[in-house]
Amino acid sequence: MFSEIIQPRFSDTDALGHINNTMLPVWFEGARDAVFKLFTPDLDLNKWQLIIAKYDVTFHAELFYGQEIELRTYISRVGGASFDVYQEAWQHGEKCVSGTTVMVNFNYSDKKAMPISESIKIELNKHIYQE
Amino acid sequence: MFSEIIQPRFSDTDALGHINNTMLPVWFEGARDAVFKLFTPDLDLNKWQLIIAKYDVTFHAELFYGQEIELRTYISRVGGASFDVYQEAWQHGEKCVSGTTVMVNFNYSDKKAMPISESIKIELNKHIYQE
Amino acid sequence: MFSEIIQPRFSDTDALGHINNTMLPVWFEGARDAVFKLFTPDLDLNKWQLIIAKYDVTFHAELFYGQEIELRTYISRVGGASFDVYQEAWQHGEKCVSGTTVMVNFNYSDKKAMPISESIKIELNKHIYQE
Amino acid sequence: MFSEIIQPRFSDTDALGHINNTMLPVWFEGARDAVFKLFTPDLDLNKWQLIIAKYDVTFHAELFYGQEIELRTYISRVGGASFDVYQEAWQHGEKCVSGTTVMVNFNYSDKKAMPISESIKIELNKHIYQE
Repeated sequence: MFSEIIQPRFSDTDALGHINNTMLPVWFEGARDAVFKLFTPDLDLNKWQLIIAKYDVTFHAELFYGQEIELRTYISRVGGASFDVYQEAWQHGEKCVSGTTVMVNFNYSDKKAMPISESIKIELNKHIYQE
Repeated sequence: MFSEIIQPRFSDTDALGHINNTMLPVWFEGARDAVFKLFTPDLDLNKWQLIIAKYDVTFHAELFYGQEIELRTYISRVGGASFDVYQEAWQHGEKCVSGTTVMVNFNYSDKKAMPISESIKIELNKHIYQE
Repeated sequence: MFSEIIQPRFSDTDALGHINNTMLPVWFEGARDAVFKLFTPDLDLNKWQLIIAKYDVTFHAELFYGQEIELRTYISRVGGASFDVYQEAWQHGEKCVSGTTVMVNFNYSDKKAMPISESIKIELNKHIYQE
Repeated sequence: MFSEIIQPRFSDTDALGHINNTMLPVWFEGARDAVFKLFTPDLDLNKWQLIIAKYDVTFHAELFYGQEIELRTYISRVGGASFDVYQEAWQHGEKCVSGTTVMVNFNYSDKKAMPISESIKIELNKHIYQE
Protein backbone atom coordinates (compact mmCIF):
# COMPACT_ATOMS: atom_id res chain seq x y z
CA MET A 1 0.00 0.00 0.00
CA PHE A 2 1.17 3.51 -0.86
CA SER A 3 -0.06 6.30 1.39
CA GLU A 4 -0.16 10.02 0.68
CA ILE A 5 -1.47 12.75 2.96
CA ILE A 6 -2.99 15.80 1.30
CA GLN A 7 -4.53 18.99 2.58
CA PRO A 8 -7.73 19.70 0.60
CA ARG A 9 -7.79 23.22 -0.85
CA PHE A 10 -10.51 25.85 -0.59
CA SER A 11 -10.98 25.62 -4.36
CA ASP A 12 -11.71 21.88 -4.03
CA THR A 13 -15.00 22.61 -2.25
CA ASP A 14 -18.30 23.32 -3.97
CA ALA A 15 -21.40 25.29 -3.08
CA LEU A 16 -22.82 22.37 -1.07
CA GLY A 17 -20.00 23.01 1.43
CA HIS A 18 -18.00 19.82 0.93
CA ILE A 19 -15.33 18.60 -1.50
CA ASN A 20 -16.63 18.41 -5.06
CA ASN A 21 -16.77 14.89 -6.51
CA THR A 22 -14.62 15.85 -9.51
CA MET A 23 -11.53 16.28 -7.30
CA LEU A 24 -11.25 12.57 -6.58
CA PRO A 25 -9.92 11.52 -10.00
CA VAL A 26 -7.38 14.36 -9.69
CA TRP A 27 -6.21 13.24 -6.26
CA PHE A 28 -6.22 9.57 -7.18
CA GLU A 29 -4.15 10.27 -10.30
CA GLY A 30 -1.71 12.27 -8.16
CA ALA A 31 -1.45 9.39 -5.70
CA ARG A 32 -0.76 6.95 -8.57
CA ASP A 33 2.66 8.64 -9.02
CA ALA A 34 4.02 5.86 -6.80
CA VAL A 35 2.70 3.32 -9.33
CA PHE A 36 3.84 5.36 -12.34
CA LYS A 37 7.38 5.26 -10.92
CA LEU A 38 7.39 1.46 -11.15
CA PHE A 39 7.09 1.92 -14.92
CA THR A 40 8.98 5.21 -15.41
CA PRO A 41 11.22 5.71 -12.35
CA ASP A 42 12.17 9.33 -13.16
CA LEU A 43 8.61 10.21 -14.29
CA ASP A 44 10.07 11.39 -17.62
CA LEU A 45 7.09 12.10 -19.84
CA ASN A 46 9.01 11.21 -23.00
CA LYS A 47 9.30 7.63 -21.76
CA TRP A 48 5.68 7.39 -20.58
CA GLN A 49 4.13 3.98 -21.09
CA LEU A 50 0.79 3.94 -19.33
CA ILE A 51 -2.67 4.84 -20.54
CA ILE A 52 -5.93 4.89 -18.63
CA ALA A 53 -8.73 2.62 -19.83
CA LYS A 54 -11.41 3.16 -17.21
CA TYR A 55 -12.06 4.31 -13.68
CA ASP A 56 -14.89 4.23 -11.19
CA VAL A 57 -15.34 6.27 -8.03
CA THR A 58 -17.78 5.45 -5.20
CA PHE A 59 -18.76 8.02 -2.54
CA HIS A 60 -19.35 6.62 0.96
CA ALA A 61 -19.25 9.82 3.06
CA GLU A 62 -18.61 13.53 2.56
CA LEU A 63 -15.08 14.96 2.55
CA PHE A 64 -14.48 18.38 4.03
CA TYR A 65 -12.07 21.28 3.74
CA GLY A 66 -9.87 22.01 6.78
CA GLN A 67 -8.85 18.45 7.68
CA GLU A 68 -6.16 16.36 6.03
CA ILE A 69 -7.06 13.41 3.81
CA GLU A 70 -5.14 10.16 3.43
CA LEU A 71 -5.04 8.59 -0.01
CA ARG A 72 -4.33 4.85 0.07
CA THR A 73 -3.23 3.18 -3.16
CA TYR A 74 -3.19 -0.58 -3.78
CA ILE A 75 -2.89 -2.88 -6.79
CA SER A 76 -6.01 -5.03 -7.06
CA ARG A 77 -5.31 -6.96 -10.28
CA VAL A 78 -2.23 -7.72 -12.39
CA GLY A 79 -3.01 -8.88 -15.92
CA GLY A 80 -0.86 -9.49 -18.99
CA ALA A 81 -0.83 -5.94 -20.36
CA SER A 82 -3.07 -4.16 -17.88
CA PHE A 83 -3.63 -3.86 -14.13
CA ASP A 84 -6.06 -2.32 -11.65
CA VAL A 85 -5.26 0.30 -9.05
CA TYR A 86 -7.66 0.38 -6.10
CA GLN A 87 -7.65 3.59 -4.04
CA GLU A 88 -9.34 5.01 -0.98
CA ALA A 89 -9.65 8.51 0.49
CA TRP A 90 -9.87 8.61 4.30
CA GLN A 91 -10.84 11.55 6.50
CA HIS A 92 -12.15 11.93 10.07
CA GLY A 93 -11.50 8.20 10.66
CA GLU A 94 -13.73 7.08 7.81
CA LYS A 95 -13.25 5.64 4.34
CA CYS A 96 -15.08 8.38 2.45
CA VAL A 97 -14.36 7.50 -1.18
CA SER A 98 -13.01 4.46 -3.01
CA GLY A 99 -12.32 3.71 -6.64
CA THR A 100 -10.59 1.51 -9.15
CA THR A 101 -8.60 2.57 -12.21
CA VAL A 102 -7.70 0.23 -15.06
CA MET A 103 -4.26 1.12 -16.48
CA VAL A 104 -2.78 -0.33 -19.66
CA ASN A 105 0.93 -0.71 -20.39
CA PHE A 106 1.04 1.19 -23.66
CA ASN A 107 3.49 1.93 -26.43
CA TYR A 108 2.72 5.52 -27.49
CA SER A 109 4.67 5.25 -30.77
CA ASP A 110 2.82 2.12 -31.98
CA LYS A 111 -0.41 3.03 -30.16
CA LYS A 112 -0.50 -0.57 -28.88
CA ALA A 113 -0.79 -2.33 -25.53
CA MET A 114 2.41 -4.10 -24.42
CA PRO A 115 2.92 -7.02 -22.01
CA ILE A 116 3.97 -5.92 -18.51
CA SER A 117 7.50 -7.16 -17.75
CA GLU A 118 7.97 -9.84 -15.09
CA SER A 119 10.10 -7.51 -12.94
CA ILE A 120 7.34 -4.88 -12.87
CA LYS A 121 4.73 -7.57 -12.12
CA ILE A 122 6.77 -8.54 -9.06
CA GLU A 123 6.78 -4.90 -7.91
CA LEU A 124 3.04 -4.51 -8.53
CA ASN A 125 2.34 -7.67 -6.57
CA LYS A 126 4.10 -6.21 -3.51
CA HIS A 127 1.25 -3.71 -3.19
CA ILE A 128 -1.65 -6.05 -3.79
CA TYR A 129 -4.94 -5.26 -2.06
CA GLN A 130 -6.09 -7.74 0.58
CA GLU A 131 -9.62 -7.22 1.80
CA MET B 1 -31.10 12.93 -24.96
CA PHE B 2 -29.59 16.24 -23.90
CA SER B 3 -26.74 17.53 -26.07
CA GLU B 4 -24.13 20.14 -25.17
CA ILE B 5 -21.28 21.34 -27.38
CA ILE B 6 -18.12 22.46 -25.60
CA GLN B 7 -14.79 23.78 -26.78
CA PRO B 8 -12.01 22.04 -24.81
CA ARG B 9 -9.58 24.49 -23.20
CA PHE B 10 -5.81 24.58 -23.40
CA SER B 11 -5.67 23.91 -19.65
CA ASP B 12 -7.70 20.71 -20.16
CA THR B 13 -4.75 19.07 -21.95
CA ASP B 14 -1.89 17.25 -20.26
CA ALA B 15 1.75 16.61 -21.14
CA LEU B 16 0.83 13.61 -23.29
CA GLY B 17 -0.76 16.10 -25.70
CA HIS B 18 -4.41 15.12 -25.31
CA ILE B 19 -7.24 15.94 -22.90
CA ASN B 20 -6.47 14.77 -19.37
CA ASN B 21 -8.80 12.04 -18.07
CA THR B 22 -9.78 14.08 -14.99
CA MET B 23 -11.68 16.60 -17.13
CA LEU B 24 -14.41 14.10 -18.01
CA PRO B 25 -16.16 14.09 -14.63
CA VAL B 26 -16.06 17.92 -14.76
CA TRP B 27 -17.63 18.04 -18.22
CA PHE B 28 -20.16 15.34 -17.46
CA GLU B 29 -21.23 17.11 -14.27
CA GLY B 30 -21.59 20.33 -16.29
CA ALA B 31 -23.73 18.51 -18.86
CA ARG B 32 -25.95 17.10 -16.09
CA ASP B 33 -27.29 20.62 -15.49
CA ALA B 34 -30.15 19.63 -17.81
CA VAL B 35 -30.97 16.78 -15.42
CA PHE B 36 -30.45 18.90 -12.29
CA LYS B 37 -33.10 21.31 -13.65
CA LEU B 38 -35.71 18.53 -13.61
CA PHE B 39 -35.24 18.48 -9.82
CA THR B 40 -34.39 22.15 -9.16
CA PRO B 41 -35.64 24.18 -12.16
CA ASP B 42 -33.87 27.43 -11.16
CA LEU B 43 -30.66 25.60 -10.06
CA ASP B 44 -31.01 27.31 -6.64
CA LEU B 45 -28.37 25.69 -4.45
CA ASN B 46 -30.45 26.21 -1.31
CA LYS B 47 -33.09 23.86 -2.69
CA TRP B 48 -30.60 21.26 -3.95
CA GLN B 49 -31.81 17.69 -3.62
CA LEU B 50 -29.35 15.46 -5.44
CA ILE B 51 -26.23 13.70 -4.24
CA ILE B 52 -23.77 11.61 -6.22
CA ALA B 53 -23.30 7.97 -5.17
CA LYS B 54 -20.91 6.67 -7.80
CA TYR B 55 -19.59 7.20 -11.28
CA ASP B 56 -17.54 5.35 -13.83
CA VAL B 57 -15.75 6.67 -16.91
CA THR B 58 -14.49 4.53 -19.83
CA PHE B 59 -11.97 5.84 -22.37
CA HIS B 60 -12.43 4.58 -25.95
CA ALA B 61 -10.28 7.07 -27.90
CA GLU B 62 -8.21 10.19 -27.23
CA LEU B 63 -9.82 13.63 -27.08
CA PHE B 64 -7.90 16.63 -28.40
CA TYR B 65 -7.70 20.38 -27.94
CA GLY B 66 -8.76 22.52 -30.91
CA GLN B 67 -11.91 20.66 -31.95
CA GLU B 68 -15.34 20.90 -30.36
CA ILE B 69 -16.73 18.06 -28.27
CA GLU B 70 -20.37 16.97 -28.01
CA LEU B 71 -21.56 15.75 -24.63
CA ARG B 72 -24.64 13.50 -24.86
CA THR B 73 -26.63 12.90 -21.70
CA TYR B 74 -29.24 10.15 -21.25
CA ILE B 75 -31.08 8.54 -18.34
CA SER B 76 -30.28 4.83 -18.21
CA ARG B 77 -32.16 3.77 -15.06
CA VAL B 78 -34.97 5.21 -12.95
CA GLY B 79 -35.24 3.67 -9.48
CA GLY B 80 -37.29 4.55 -6.40
CA ALA B 81 -34.91 7.10 -4.89
CA SER B 82 -32.01 6.99 -7.34
CA PHE B 83 -31.33 6.99 -11.06
CA ASP B 84 -28.46 6.56 -13.51
CA VAL B 85 -27.22 9.13 -15.98
CA TYR B 86 -25.36 7.70 -18.97
CA GLN B 87 -23.14 10.13 -20.88
CA GLU B 88 -20.89 10.15 -23.91
CA ALA B 89 -18.24 12.55 -25.22
CA TRP B 90 -17.94 12.65 -29.03
CA GLN B 91 -15.19 14.23 -31.11
CA HIS B 92 -13.91 13.79 -34.69
CA GLY B 93 -16.92 11.51 -35.44
CA GLU B 94 -16.10 9.05 -32.67
CA LYS B 95 -17.49 8.19 -29.26
CA CYS B 96 -14.30 8.85 -27.27
CA VAL B 97 -15.52 8.53 -23.68
CA SER B 98 -18.61 7.16 -21.97
CA GLY B 99 -19.69 6.92 -18.36
CA THR B 100 -22.51 6.38 -15.92
CA THR B 101 -23.28 8.37 -12.78
CA VAL B 102 -25.59 7.16 -10.02
CA MET B 103 -27.51 10.08 -8.51
CA VAL B 104 -29.65 9.90 -5.37
CA ASN B 105 -32.62 12.12 -4.58
CA PHE B 106 -31.45 13.43 -1.23
CA ASN B 107 -32.79 15.51 1.60
CA TYR B 108 -29.82 17.57 2.81
CA SER B 109 -31.48 18.56 6.11
CA ASP B 110 -32.27 14.94 7.17
CA LYS B 111 -29.27 13.48 5.33
CA LYS B 112 -31.64 10.86 3.89
CA ALA B 113 -32.56 9.53 0.45
CA MET B 114 -36.09 10.46 -0.67
CA PRO B 115 -38.42 8.81 -3.20
CA ILE B 116 -38.39 10.49 -6.62
CA SER B 117 -41.81 12.01 -7.38
CA GLU B 118 -43.93 10.52 -10.15
CA SER B 119 -43.84 13.74 -12.17
CA ILE B 120 -40.03 13.79 -12.16
CA LYS B 121 -39.96 10.08 -13.08
CA ILE B 122 -42.06 10.91 -16.15
CA GLU B 123 -39.55 13.61 -17.13
CA LEU B 124 -36.56 11.32 -16.58
CA ASN B 125 -38.19 8.62 -18.69
CA LYS B 126 -38.43 11.04 -21.63
CA HIS B 127 -34.63 10.92 -21.89
CA ILE B 128 -34.13 7.21 -21.47
CA TYR B 129 -31.15 5.61 -23.22
CA GLN B 130 -31.95 3.14 -25.99
CA GLU B 131 -28.99 1.14 -27.21
CA MET C 1 -13.70 42.30 -29.26
CA PHE C 2 -14.17 38.54 -29.08
CA SER C 3 -17.18 37.31 -27.11
CA GLU C 4 -17.77 33.84 -25.67
CA ILE C 5 -20.77 32.70 -23.64
CA ILE C 6 -20.17 29.99 -21.07
CA GLN C 7 -22.37 28.19 -18.60
CA PRO C 8 -20.53 27.98 -15.24
CA ARG C 9 -20.38 24.44 -13.87
CA PHE C 10 -21.35 23.17 -10.45
CA SER C 11 -17.71 22.22 -9.83
CA ASP C 12 -16.68 25.86 -10.47
CA THR C 13 -18.39 26.97 -7.25
CA ASP C 14 -16.82 26.90 -3.80
CA ALA C 15 -18.14 26.56 -0.27
CA LEU C 16 -18.91 30.29 -0.08
CA GLY C 17 -21.65 29.61 -2.65
CA HIS C 18 -20.21 31.53 -5.60
CA ILE C 19 -17.69 30.84 -8.38
CA ASN C 20 -14.22 30.22 -7.00
CA ASN C 21 -11.64 32.84 -7.98
CA THR C 22 -9.29 30.22 -9.48
CA MET C 23 -11.72 29.55 -12.36
CA LEU C 24 -11.13 32.94 -13.95
CA PRO C 25 -7.65 32.20 -15.35
CA VAL C 26 -9.09 28.96 -16.76
CA TRP C 27 -11.99 30.73 -18.46
CA PHE C 28 -9.87 33.61 -19.67
CA GLU C 29 -7.31 31.19 -21.16
CA GLY C 30 -10.16 29.35 -22.88
CA ALA C 31 -11.50 32.62 -24.29
CA ARG C 32 -8.01 33.53 -25.59
CA ASP C 33 -8.40 30.73 -28.18
CA ALA C 34 -9.60 33.43 -30.57
CA VAL C 35 -6.27 35.23 -30.05
CA PHE C 36 -4.23 32.02 -30.22
CA LYS C 37 -5.76 31.38 -33.65
CA LEU C 38 -4.24 34.62 -34.96
CA PHE C 39 -0.82 33.02 -34.30
CA THR C 40 -1.64 29.33 -34.89
CA PRO C 41 -4.84 29.18 -37.01
CA ASP C 42 -5.37 25.42 -36.59
CA LEU C 43 -4.38 25.48 -32.88
CA ASP C 44 -1.76 22.80 -33.64
CA LEU C 45 0.26 22.45 -30.46
CA ASN C 46 3.40 21.47 -32.38
CA LYS C 47 3.45 24.92 -33.96
CA TRP C 48 2.67 26.79 -30.75
CA GLN C 49 4.42 30.13 -30.43
CA LEU C 50 3.01 31.92 -27.42
CA ILE C 51 4.06 31.90 -23.80
CA ILE C 52 2.46 33.63 -20.84
CA ALA C 53 4.55 36.17 -18.92
CA LYS C 54 2.09 37.52 -16.39
CA TYR C 55 -1.57 37.99 -15.58
CA ASP C 56 -3.70 39.88 -13.13
CA VAL C 57 -7.34 39.34 -12.21
CA THR C 58 -9.56 41.88 -10.39
CA PHE C 59 -12.85 40.90 -8.75
CA HIS C 60 -15.60 43.53 -8.90
CA ALA C 61 -18.68 41.42 -8.03
CA GLU C 62 -19.54 37.79 -7.29
CA LEU C 63 -20.25 35.34 -10.11
CA PHE C 64 -22.85 32.64 -9.59
CA TYR C 65 -23.75 29.18 -10.82
CA GLY C 66 -26.98 28.84 -12.81
CA GLN C 67 -26.67 31.91 -15.07
CA GLU C 68 -24.58 32.23 -18.19
CA ILE C 69 -21.41 34.35 -18.24
CA GLU C 70 -20.07 36.39 -21.14
CA LEU C 71 -16.31 36.53 -21.55
CA ARG C 72 -15.14 39.58 -23.52
CA THR C 73 -11.62 39.54 -24.92
CA TYR C 74 -9.74 42.60 -26.22
CA ILE C 75 -6.15 43.45 -27.11
CA SER C 76 -4.94 46.30 -24.91
CA ARG C 77 -1.31 46.66 -26.03
CA VAL C 78 0.70 45.51 -29.04
CA GLY C 79 4.49 45.59 -28.49
CA GLY C 80 7.42 44.32 -30.53
CA ALA C 81 7.46 40.75 -29.25
CA SER C 82 4.67 40.81 -26.69
CA PHE C 83 1.10 42.03 -26.29
CA ASP C 84 -1.58 42.39 -23.64
CA VAL C 85 -4.97 40.72 -23.65
CA TYR C 86 -7.60 42.50 -21.56
CA GLN C 87 -10.64 40.40 -20.59
CA GLU C 88 -13.89 40.81 -18.71
CA ALA C 89 -16.44 38.37 -17.29
CA TRP C 90 -20.03 39.67 -17.29
CA GLN C 91 -23.05 38.20 -15.50
CA HIS C 92 -26.46 39.54 -14.37
CA GLY C 93 -25.75 42.78 -16.33
CA GLU C 94 -22.54 43.54 -14.43
CA LYS C 95 -18.84 43.44 -15.16
CA CYS C 96 -17.89 41.02 -12.37
CA VAL C 97 -14.22 40.29 -13.13
CA SER C 98 -11.56 41.86 -15.33
CA GLY C 99 -7.94 41.01 -16.00
CA THR C 100 -4.94 41.47 -18.24
CA THR C 101 -2.57 38.81 -19.53
CA VAL C 102 0.84 39.54 -21.01
CA MET C 103 1.63 37.11 -23.83
CA VAL C 104 5.03 36.76 -25.53
CA ASN C 105 5.60 35.55 -29.09
CA PHE C 106 8.00 32.74 -28.31
CA ASN C 107 10.18 30.29 -30.19
CA TYR C 108 9.98 27.06 -28.18
CA SER C 109 13.02 25.48 -29.88
CA ASP C 110 15.38 28.44 -29.15
CA LYS C 111 13.53 29.41 -25.93
CA LYS C 112 13.60 33.02 -27.18
CA ALA C 113 11.07 35.80 -27.72
CA MET C 114 10.46 36.63 -31.39
CA PRO C 115 9.17 39.83 -33.03
CA ILE C 116 5.45 39.71 -33.86
CA SER C 117 4.93 39.85 -37.64
CA GLU C 118 3.32 42.93 -39.16
CA SER C 119 0.38 40.90 -40.47
CA ILE C 120 -0.42 39.59 -36.99
CA LYS C 121 -0.02 43.09 -35.54
CA ILE C 122 -2.70 44.29 -37.96
CA GLU C 123 -5.03 41.51 -36.80
CA LEU C 124 -4.35 42.24 -33.12
CA ASN C 125 -5.05 45.93 -33.68
CA LYS C 126 -8.52 45.10 -35.02
CA HIS C 127 -9.49 44.00 -31.51
CA ILE C 128 -7.94 46.85 -29.56
CA TYR C 129 -9.63 47.89 -26.33
CA GLN C 130 -11.19 51.36 -26.29
CA GLU C 131 -12.27 52.56 -22.87
CA MET D 1 7.24 33.13 5.92
CA PHE D 2 5.03 30.08 5.57
CA SER D 3 6.41 27.22 3.49
CA GLU D 4 4.50 24.34 1.89
CA ILE D 5 5.96 21.56 -0.23
CA ILE D 6 3.71 20.10 -2.92
CA GLN D 7 4.14 17.39 -5.51
CA PRO D 8 2.73 18.63 -8.83
CA ARG D 9 0.22 16.21 -10.36
CA PHE D 10 0.12 14.77 -13.85
CA SER D 11 -3.17 16.60 -14.45
CA ASP D 12 -1.46 19.93 -13.62
CA THR D 13 0.61 19.71 -16.82
CA ASP D 14 -0.52 20.89 -20.26
CA ALA D 15 0.27 19.89 -23.82
CA LEU D 16 3.38 22.09 -23.86
CA GLY D 17 4.88 19.63 -21.36
CA HIS D 18 5.08 21.88 -18.31
CA ILE D 19 2.73 22.96 -15.52
CA ASN D 20 -0.21 24.94 -16.86
CA ASN D 21 -0.34 28.57 -15.71
CA THR D 22 -3.86 28.19 -14.30
CA MET D 23 -2.60 25.93 -11.50
CA LEU D 24 -0.74 28.72 -9.75
CA PRO D 25 -3.80 30.51 -8.33
CA VAL D 26 -5.00 27.09 -7.09
CA TRP D 27 -1.70 26.33 -5.35
CA PHE D 28 -1.31 29.85 -3.98
CA GLU D 29 -4.86 29.75 -2.56
CA GLY D 30 -4.04 26.38 -0.97
CA ALA D 31 -0.87 27.81 0.56
CA ARG D 32 -2.82 30.78 1.96
CA ASP D 33 -4.51 28.37 4.41
CA ALA D 34 -1.82 29.42 6.89
CA VAL D 35 -3.01 33.02 6.51
CA PHE D 36 -6.71 32.06 6.57
CA LYS D 37 -6.10 30.41 9.96
CA LEU D 38 -5.01 33.76 11.44
CA PHE D 39 -8.58 34.93 10.75
CA THR D 40 -10.52 31.66 11.17
CA PRO D 41 -8.33 29.29 13.24
CA ASP D 42 -10.50 26.19 12.63
CA LEU D 43 -11.11 27.09 8.94
CA ASP D 44 -14.86 26.87 9.63
CA LEU D 45 -16.52 28.13 6.46
CA ASN D 46 -19.53 29.47 8.39
CA LYS D 47 -17.24 31.96 10.13
CA TRP D 48 -15.33 32.94 6.99
CA GLN D 49 -14.33 36.59 6.87
CA LEU D 50 -12.02 37.07 3.92
CA ILE D 51 -12.73 37.92 0.31
CA ILE D 52 -10.32 38.23 -2.60
CA ALA D 53 -10.08 41.59 -4.37
CA LYS D 54 -7.32 41.01 -6.87
CA TYR D 55 -4.33 38.87 -7.71
CA ASP D 56 -1.42 38.92 -10.11
CA VAL D 57 0.88 36.07 -11.13
CA THR D 58 4.27 36.48 -12.87
CA PHE D 59 6.04 33.59 -14.61
CA HIS D 60 9.85 33.62 -14.39
CA ALA D 61 10.67 30.04 -15.42
CA GLU D 62 8.83 26.83 -16.32
CA LEU D 63 7.62 24.43 -13.63
CA PHE D 64 7.69 20.71 -14.31
CA TYR D 65 5.95 17.51 -13.24
CA GLY D 66 8.07 14.99 -11.33
CA GLN D 67 9.89 17.33 -8.92
CA GLU D 68 8.52 18.86 -5.76
CA ILE D 69 7.65 22.55 -5.55
CA GLU D 70 8.01 24.84 -2.54
CA LEU D 71 5.35 27.48 -2.07
CA ARG D 72 6.54 30.42 0.05
CA THR D 73 3.92 32.74 1.51
CA TYR D 74 4.61 36.20 2.98
CA ILE D 75 2.56 39.23 3.95
CA SER D 76 3.67 42.23 1.91
CA ARG D 77 1.22 44.92 3.11
CA VAL D 78 -1.09 45.34 6.10
CA GLY D 79 -3.78 48.00 5.61
CA GLY D 80 -6.84 48.99 7.63
CA ALA D 81 -9.28 46.46 6.20
CA SER D 82 -7.14 44.72 3.60
CA PHE D 83 -3.69 43.19 3.20
CA ASP D 84 -1.44 41.74 0.53
CA VAL D 85 -0.10 38.19 0.41
CA TYR D 86 3.07 37.78 -1.65
CA GLN D 87 3.87 34.23 -2.77
CA GLU D 88 6.56 32.39 -4.68
CA ALA D 89 6.79 28.92 -6.25
CA TRP D 90 10.30 27.43 -6.25
CA GLN D 91 11.52 24.36 -8.15
CA HIS D 92 14.94 23.08 -9.27
CA GLY D 93 16.62 25.84 -7.19
CA GLU D 94 14.83 28.65 -8.98
CA LYS D 95 12.03 31.07 -8.18
CA CYS D 96 9.75 30.08 -11.07
CA VAL D 97 6.55 32.01 -10.28
CA SER D 98 5.64 34.88 -7.97
CA GLY D 99 2.40 36.70 -7.27
CA THR D 100 0.49 38.99 -4.96
CA THR D 101 -3.09 38.61 -3.75
CA VAL D 102 -5.11 41.43 -2.18
CA MET D 103 -7.40 40.05 0.54
CA VAL D 104 -10.15 42.05 2.27
CA ASN D 105 -11.47 41.41 5.77
CA PHE D 106 -15.13 41.02 4.92
CA ASN D 107 -18.41 40.65 6.71
CA TYR D 108 -20.46 38.24 4.57
CA SER D 109 -23.78 39.09 6.25
CA ASP D 110 -23.44 42.89 5.69
CA LYS D 111 -21.42 42.48 2.48
CA LYS D 112 -19.01 45.09 3.89
CA ALA D 113 -15.27 45.39 4.50
CA MET D 114 -14.33 45.40 8.22
CA PRO D 115 -11.22 46.78 9.98
CA ILE D 116 -8.60 44.12 10.73
CA SER D 117 -8.20 43.72 14.50
CA GLU D 118 -4.95 44.79 16.16
CA SER D 119 -4.19 41.25 17.31
CA ILE D 120 -4.45 39.89 13.76
CA LYS D 121 -2.32 42.78 12.47
CA ILE D 122 0.41 41.72 14.92
CA GLU D 123 0.24 38.16 13.56
CA LEU D 124 0.31 39.30 9.93
CA ASN D 125 3.33 41.50 10.65
CA LYS D 126 5.28 38.46 11.90
CA HIS D 127 5.29 37.15 8.32
CA ILE D 128 6.14 40.38 6.52
CA TYR D 129 8.13 40.13 3.31
CA GLN D 130 11.65 41.60 3.39
CA GLU D 131 13.29 41.89 0.00
